[in-house]
Amino acid sequence: MENYPSKLVEDVVNHLSRLPGIGKRTALRLAIHLLKQDKIMVEKLGNSLINMANEIKRCKICFNISDNDTCDICSNPKRDKGLVCIVEDIRDVMAIENTGQYHGIYHVLGGLISPMEGVGPADLSIEPLIQRITQGEVHEIIMALATTIEGDTTNFYIYRRVKDQELKVSTLARGVAIGDELEYTDEVTLGRSIINRMPYEQALRK
Amino acid sequence: MENYPSKLVEDVVNHLSRLPGIGKRTALRLAIHLLKQDKIMVEKLGNSLINMANEIKRCKICFNISDNDTCDICSNPKRDKGLVCIVEDIRDVMAIENTGQYHGIYHVLGGLISPMEGVGPADLSIEPLIQRITQGEVHEIIMALATTIEGDTTNFYIYRRVKDQELKVSTLARGVAIGDELEYTDEVTLGRSIINRMPYEQALRK
Repeated sequence: MENYPSKLVEDVVNHLSRLPGIGKRTALRLAIHLLKQDKIMVEKLGNSLINMANEIKRCKICFNISDNDTCDICSNPKRDKGLVCIVEDIRDVMAIENTGQYHGIYHVLGGLISPMEGVGPADLSIEPLIQRITQGEVHEIIMALATTIEGDTTNFYIYRRVKDQELKVSTLARGVAIGDELEYTDEVTLGRSIINRMPYEQALRK
Repeated sequence: MENYPSKLVEDVVNHLSRLPGIGKRTALRLAIHLLKQDKIMVEKLGNSLINMANEIKRCKICFNISDNDTCDICSNPKRDKGLVCIVEDIRDVMAIENTGQYHGIYHVLGGLISPMEGVGPADLSIEPLIQRITQGEVHEIIMALATTIEGDTTNFYIYRRVKDQELKVSTLARGVAIGDELEYTDEVTLGRSIINRMPYEQALRK
């Protein structure tokens, strides 16, 4: 696809097609869609991107994306500041918040350790996490990272760094998802869920 | 997905998810991707959209998208102004231009007649096409619309409007695609390609 009849459209296509999962063809389809929309709507989209790029902040405590220096969660007096859930990014925070079951605060790493992709501990907000912990207010951290090699590596790295601290280190319960049939549960998950079986009374409570 | 930790991110997600084929989840993934990029790149994307919305023009002759009042094709003195290819939108122009086989000019309808979607002839640039034709410079029009009900309806509507003019009306050749196996060619196409068979010498020339 070349021969763009307009440099303006070509610019939009080139920029949109840098986004993950969007090729030149899709980008052109989106550009044509936008040309059929109200000009004001397209301007609003453009301005929302520019505003986000210029004004977004990271919470200075948990490193989550925020509009302020301290995010709404860290500045909420009702949250337990001694309980810190360690997650990869903002989507995990949103997913856990949506459960309504968590009343601690977070620490957003901004990625996972991945030697394959050249991501080391120094590229993530691990040092600030260690600082938070050594300051003494934190009594428990919950590892809530993906169950992948990268997630496990990151879990283990953090565990080694904090294991001499007076600190409870826990991880999310793994097991058969609620609503899932055993038949379709993978063997590893099913195996673990037998080993880590829990009292029936405890399951009733949840 | 609610509980956005940032109004800035929420704005971007809301605007991106209005695009066709992009839901809230994909929009959030794109927003997070953009937050990891260089700020300048995101600003460039935003500005490219705003510039396109504000500065894009339609060529006053062929109605194709253009950066100027007359597009590069219509203002090219080497193009045959008597031969007009009628297409739905800019993508068709680009596809035909990419063949390098066409040296006439275009007329971009901006859509197809579709009673189902409430698109009538008045919503398309059909009147300006009739005007171009009645002005007398055009000696042939090539119908290059989709082979759908909408395309056929539009073809027929235009044909009725111009059939009393001294004008050759042609359509794209339909047949077995080059490189295709007969086995996988649909019956209608294969049937037509037998009825409209052409001299072998003519096929050799192409």
